[in-house]
Amino acid sequence: MSTARLETFADGVFAIAATLLILNVDAQVGDGTTDLGKRLLEIWPSYIAYAVSFVTIGIIWSNHHTVMAQLGKVNRTFLMLNVFLLMCVAFIPFPTRLIAENFHDRTELEPAALAYGATMTVMSICYISLWLYAIGGGRLLRDDSDSLTVSGITRSYLPGAPMYFTATLLALVSPVASVALFGAIALFYVVESSFFGT
Amino acid sequence: MSTARLETFADGVFAIAATLLILNVDAQVGDGTTDLGKRLLEIWPSYIAYAVSFVTIGIIWSNHHTVMAQLGKVNRTFLMLNVFLLMCVAFIPFPTRLIAENFHDRTELEPAALAYGATMTVMSICYISLWLYAIGGGRLLRDDSDSLTVSGITRSYLPGAPMYFTATLLALVSPVASVALFGAIALFYVVESSFFGT
Amino acid sequence: MSTARLETFADGVFAIAATLLILNVDAQVGDGTTDLGKRLLEIWPSYIAYAVSFVTIGIIWSNHHTVMAQLGKVNRTFLMLNVFLLMCVAFIPFPTRLIAENFHDRTELEPAALAYGATMTVMSICYISLWLYAIGGGRLLRDDSDSLTVSGITRSYLPGAPMYFTATLLALVSPVASVALFGAIALFYVVESSFFGT
Amino acid sequence: MSTARLETFADGVFAIAATLLILNVDAQVGDGTTDLGKRLLEIWPSYIAYAVSFVTIGIIWSNHHTVMAQLGKVNRTFLMLNVFLLMCVAFIPFPTRLIAENFHDRTELEPAALAYGATMTVMSICYISLWLYAIGGGRLLRDDSDSLTVSGITRSYLPGAPMYFTATLLALVSPVASVALFGAIALFYVVESSFFGT
Repeated sequence: MSTARLETFADGVFAIAATLLILNVDAQVGDGTTDLGKRLLEIWPSYIAYAVSFVTIGIIWSNHHTVMAQLGKVNRTFLMLNVFLLMCVAFIPFPTRLIAENFHDRTELEPAALAYGATMTVMSICYISLWLYAIGGGRLLRDDSDSLTVSGITRSYLPGAPMYFTATLLALVSPVASVALFGAIALFYVVESSFFGT
Repeated sequence: MSTARLETFADGVFAIAATLLILNVDAQVGDGTTDLGKRLLEIWPSYIAYAVSFVTIGIIWSNHHTVMAQLGKVNRTFLMLNVFLLMCVAFIPFPTRLIAENFHDRTELEPAALAYGATMTVMSICYISLWLYAIGGGRLLRDDSDSLTVSGITRSYLPGAPMYFTATLLALVSPVASVALFGAIALFYVVESSFFGT
Repeated sequence: MSTARLETFADGVFAIAATLLILNVDAQVGDGTTDLGKRLLEIWPSYIAYAVSFVTIGIIWSNHHTVMAQLGKVNRTFLMLNVFLLMCVAFIPFPTRLIAENFHDRTELEPAALAYGATMTVMSICYISLWLYAIGGGRLLRDDSDSLTVSGITRSYLPGAPMYFTATLLALVSPVASVALFGAIALFYVVESSFFGT
Repeated sequence: MSTARLETFADGVFAIAATLLILNVDAQVGDGTTDLGKRLLEIWPSYIAYAVSFVTIGIIWSNHHTVMAQLGKVNRTFLMLNVFLLMCVAFIPFPTRLIAENFHDRTELEPAALAYGATMTVMSICYISLWLYAIGGGRLLRDDSDSLTVSGITRSYLPGAPMYFTATLLALVSPVASVALFGAIALFYVVESSFFGT
């Protein structure tokens, strides 16, 4: 089985999940809002949340691209692992809204941050599992895969789950710090991608 | 007519139908929810429903891939049959929400399970019709199609409609058992796909 | 400019417009619906409207495919005409909901049918304009385009706008007859596509 | 890294952002609307807003195509800049709704026009940055890129940000004039694309 059609489906899910994020911002402004200007300023956490999640999905997409470029074929187990990964990615808009909506309410921000962190942690676990399965014994690697790139991907994906898990636990102590850390992780990946990636 | 563009459209519908499922989870948490943590735990059937339907659509997508790989061309009748199949797939998010929302209310779960089951039964009938039309007299098969794969697909698709129809009827006796059976069918296909597929 | 990327964008719009139709059915069942079974039966016009519009979009997509297969290149004017066509296609879910929601209320069905008919009429005009522009003086045709197919497409697209316009006007006399005619036009195209197309 | 998969993801975001615009029109007609005909006429600004934003996204898509056709490769920095551009594009449906909904209320139209203008200004800055990065020192250009096309793109993109910024500032004086100018800019690009593009 070739890798092309898997990418079409995956790119579709990435693109839709990212684009649906705007519905979260949109829902913050009701139909009969009075003093729209004030409301648009008040909901600034929605814009940050939109940007962080959009960029996060963009990075996951871009990394997915890097992964697929190293593979020569896929099998049904890989397809299923990929479906699980996409299931997590498509879930991201939901906890993103929870954080955006409850940012000004510290009591409700805790469960929102836990939900976001749990989603990202499970997503990271799916991602590293997918990758370790693909490269285990060189199972799905191209014949001419680049061993430096392969070990670079492993090194870059392994810290994902522990980082997100730590940020999730932090929500129990300080939801705001947890949310800031989610933003920082996204920023870290943007910088890492742009400067050290190829 | 080549098969490529049919796949782009189909993959689009699969990807969107799967990604829209998150709106069902999202709708379970209203704007002014108090005690968000409690609410997020209460709506656990939404998560299961999300996962089952996402994986189900993922499997339908993956099987669609397997089918198309055996075909050398498509004709207009096949295109129309494919549109009917996609129409059923795009319908799945609706009964999924009905089940997720009414899981705690056994009276309302019955019509929800019937709606879900009817959708999946009709979808299975469309799928097997599409396939039998394509292979009838080798109508659309590639010249080098693999007869083992072809008979394997037929064997794997034929039980779909009866299985879903049985699970649907079961809803009249026990909606919960019916819903559990829908989950089990999805799980069965995941395992079957991962271990016995190629 | 090649035709490939135009098709990716167009297929995306077709797939999303078709898949969004389910939101119309979904919106008919509120959150706190009691007696779900009764409600699911009551909203049968939603299912018909869903099917008719999904199949209509499927046919427009499939015809778009047929058109593109005859073209060897596209230019910016064609791109713009194509954007106008897609703008009409993406509009279809809206009047579809209006008809589905107001089917039981004959007073409100009239404007709904007029809105649906106007959308389809404008869409048909965009479609035939796109086509006549492409073939005018053989402007964008492939060198090896099939003149029989080309004149077949023209013959098949020309009646679209008058048919939809007639059905729209009929709404002023009998909204129900108008709506039935919209369904009949879709059915006509399904049959025409499956049996006489290639 | 090849340019193909970047285009699939980008086309997905363009297609979805454009198609989601219909939800804005749809939301203007509530469930229990009485006198639907009157309501459908009242909400005419929604139709204009839908058309302007759909066409705007169509032009951005079509220009993206022109840009990519000149590039021979992409790198991670380009990918990230592209994600930022798409983030702005996917944002467009939100301020579009704000303008459509508040068109009849001059007090609320000012913040709506500012939001729309800010989105388009930031989008234009992302677009020109992406382009200047790609062509700086011929970084990502194809070996056989057309220098006339390259300088033509630069000339056509540079005025975008100032034009949108001016229209945004105009909202502080006259929101209606600002909104009219947004429409005029879109129209200008349609005409420019169709007649002077290639």
